[in-house]
Amino acid sequence: MIKAKAYAALQPKTQLVPWNFERREVGHKDVKFDILYCGVCHSDLHQINDDWGPGIFPMVPGHEIIGKVSQVGSQVTRFKVGDLVGTGCLVDSCRTCENCKQGLEQYCLNGHSQTYNGIEQDKKTPTYGGYSDKIVVHEDFVLRIPDKLDLAATAPLLCAGITTYSPLRHWKVGKGHKLAVLGLGGLGHMAVKFGVAFGAEVTVLSTSATKENDAKKLGAHKFVVTKDEKQLKSVYGYFDFIIDTVSAPHDINMYIALLKTDGVHICVGAPPTPYQLAAFSLIPGRKSIVGSMIGGLPETQEMLDFCAAHDIVSDIEMINMKDIHKAYERMNKGDVRYRFVIDIATL
Amino acid sequence: MIKAKAYAALQPKTQLVPWNFERREVGHKDVKFDILYCGVCHSDLHQINDDWGPGIFPMVPGHEIIGKVSQVGSQVTRFKVGDLVGTGCLVDSCRTCENCKQGLEQYCLNGHSQTYNGIEQDKKTPTYGGYSDKIVVHEDFVLRIPDKLDLAATAPLLCAGITTYSPLRHWKVGKGHKLAVLGLGGLGHMAVKFGVAFGAEVTVLSTSATKENDAKKLGAHKFVVTKDEKQLKSVYGYFDFIIDTVSAPHDINMYIALLKTDGVHICVGAPPTPYQLAAFSLIPGRKSIVGSMIGGLPETQEMLDFCAAHDIVSDIEMINMKDIHKAYERMNKGDVRYRFVIDIATL
Repeated sequence: MIKAKAYAALQPKTQLVPWNFERREVGHKDVKFDILYCGVCHSDLHQINDDWGPGIFPMVPGHEIIGKVSQVGSQVTRFKVGDLVGTGCLVDSCRTCENCKQGLEQYCLNGHSQTYNGIEQDKKTPTYGGYSDKIVVHEDFVLRIPDKLDLAATAPLLCAGITTYSPLRHWKVGKGHKLAVLGLGGLGHMAVKFGVAFGAEVTVLSTSATKENDAKKLGAHKFVVTKDEKQLKSVYGYFDFIIDTVSAPHDINMYIALLKTDGVHICVGAPPTPYQLAAFSLIPGRKSIVGSMIGGLPETQEMLDFCAAHDIVSDIEMINMKDIHKAYERMNKGDVRYRFVIDIATL
Repeated sequence: MIKAKAYAALQPKTQLVPWNFERREVGHKDVKFDILYCGVCHSDLHQINDDWGPGIFPMVPGHEIIGKVSQVGSQVTRFKVGDLVGTGCLVDSCRTCENCKQGLEQYCLNGHSQTYNGIEQDKKTPTYGGYSDKIVVHEDFVLRIPDKLDLAATAPLLCAGITTYSPLRHWKVGKGHKLAVLGLGGLGHMAVKFGVAFGAEVTVLSTSATKENDAKKLGAHKFVVTKDEKQLKSVYGYFDFIIDTVSAPHDINMYIALLKTDGVHICVGAPPTPYQLAAFSLIPGRKSIVGSMIGGLPETQEMLDFCAAHDIVSDIEMINMKDIHKAYERMNKGDVRYRFVIDIATL
C-alpha cells in the first residue's frame, strides 16, 4: 500500500484535521499522480455535514484534482510519468451498462464510484478525494490537462466547469439563443464563460446589483436585478434557456415565467428542499425543467480541450490547506470570486 | 344578433340553468353551426367553481363541440352549409405573433380567445361555449370533421384528444419507446389509444387494480398497480416517457423514478397545488418535466384526420342536458368511461 497524507473529517460535522492513510498499490491500468491543486466545491461542505444523507468517515473531500503523474501501471497506454493530469467527480463506473458505453459514466446504471465519500466498484472500499498529496486512479478516469492552461485555475473545470458545459452542449445552447444564468458563484461564472464562448446572448440574473460589474467582466451581455420589478418584467418571456446554479431554496416559477414558449430551465444546483412547481408554470408555454449532473469522461476531456482552445479557466482564489474552514465560511456567504483552490504544497 | 339557447351558470359555484342569450351576426369570414354534441371536460366544472380564479358569468361551458354548418359568411372559402364541423378550446387568437404564425395558437403571445369563460380579440366581448344550440366562429378556428367518424365520440377529441396527441407528437413518442400513462380518465384513455397507434409500448399506471381490464381493452400492453411495491419496483428506470393526466395532487418524484436516463415526464393535468419536485429527481438521470397545452389549429385538424385513418374516437357515455350535474358528480368520482358527451338535441 502507498502512504498518503490528507486533511480529513474524522466524523460528520467536524473540522478537517491532518490524517494519514493508505492508497492502493498502482495496478496494471492505474495512474498515480502527485496532487498539485484541488478546488473547493460547495458539495464538499454538504457532504462533511451529512446534508445529503450519511457519509463515509473519515472523509477526505475534493473532486477537482490536478497533478503530475509519478508512476504508471504496466498496461497504461495513455499516460507517462511527468504528464499533467486531472480527476474530477468520478474515479470508476461499471463500464458495461448502456450509459457507460455511451460515455455517460456519470449516469452509470450500476452506480459509479465517486471520487470521495463513495465506494470503489468492489462495492466496499471507500474512496478518498483530493485534499491529499497523491491519488491512484484507473487510467480511463484520468484526464489529460492541456499544457497551456493555468493549472490551479483549471482544477474547478473538473466539477464547476463540466457541470455547466455538459447541459449547455446537450441542449445545444449557442448562437441566436438568449441564455440566463441564475446564481453567479462557482458554477454560474463558468456558465457565463461557456455561454459567451458558445455564441449565446448571456444575461446574469441576480437578486442584487452588486455583481453587475463582475458579470460584465466575465463576459455577460446583460444583467438583471430580479428584485427590481421593472427590470424583471423587461425579461418576461425573453429567454430560450435558464441555467439555474442556485442550491438555496428559491421560487422556480418566477424564473420559468422569464422563458419563451418551449424554453428550458436547466437545474444544476440542488436545493435541500423541493421546488414548489406549479403545473401552470410549464403548461401554457410548453416549457421544460431539466436536470443535469456533471459530465462523462469523453465530454470532460472535450471541455478541457475546448478551454485550452478558447483560453477559458476559472477565476480562483488560492488558499493554504490550513485555511480551509475560513474558506468554507466565506463560501457559505457567497464571498468568493469564484472558486477557492487549495495549494496542496501547503498540506 | 342571433338568438341562442344554452345551459349556463349564472353565478360562480351554482347549478347550470336554461339561459337565453345572443350570438353575434355571421361576419364575412364566420361560420355558424348547429351544435349536435358537446363533450364534458373536467375543466368545465373547475371554471364554474372559480377554481382557477374569477370567471366570467353567466358562463356557458363546453369546448368539445361538434355540429353541422347552417350559415357561412360571404368570404368563407373552406366550409359550406351542411358540412360537419367542430370547435375546440380556442375560437380566436391574434394571428400575428410568432407562435400564431407557426400554428401554435394555443400559445398566442397576445392571448388567445378561449371558447368560453374568455374574451374575443376585441378584449371585451365574452365568449360562450358549447352547452348551447348554435355557435358563430371565424372559419380559421373551425375544424373539418371527417365523415367516417362517429360524431358524438369525436367531440372529446377536440380537448382530451388533442391535449394528449400534441405532446406525444411533439416529443416524437413512437416505435421503440416505452410510454407510461398516468391516470385513466378522459385524457388518459386517449393517451393510451394514441400511444398504441404511434407504435409505443404502453403501460397504464394506476393506484388500483380495478382498471386493468379496461386498460387492456383500450390497447395498453401492460398495467402496473403503483401501490404494489413489487410491481412499482419492476418498472423503476423503465420508461422513456410518462404522460401525466392527473389533476389531483400527487407525488411526482415517485413517477420520475420510473423514467430512464433522459426520460421525459409530460404534464397535461394541472393539480391545484404545486408539485413538490426534488432537484435530485431530475439531476442524476438528466430527466425532464415538461408541460403541454391542447394544440394549435393545424395540429388539431391533423389529429382528426389521423383518427379517421386509424379508426380512433373517444369512449363515451351520452347524457341529456338536464343530467349535467349527475354527470359532474360521477366525473368527480372518476366514475365515467371515459367522457360524458351531451346530446344537444335534449337542450
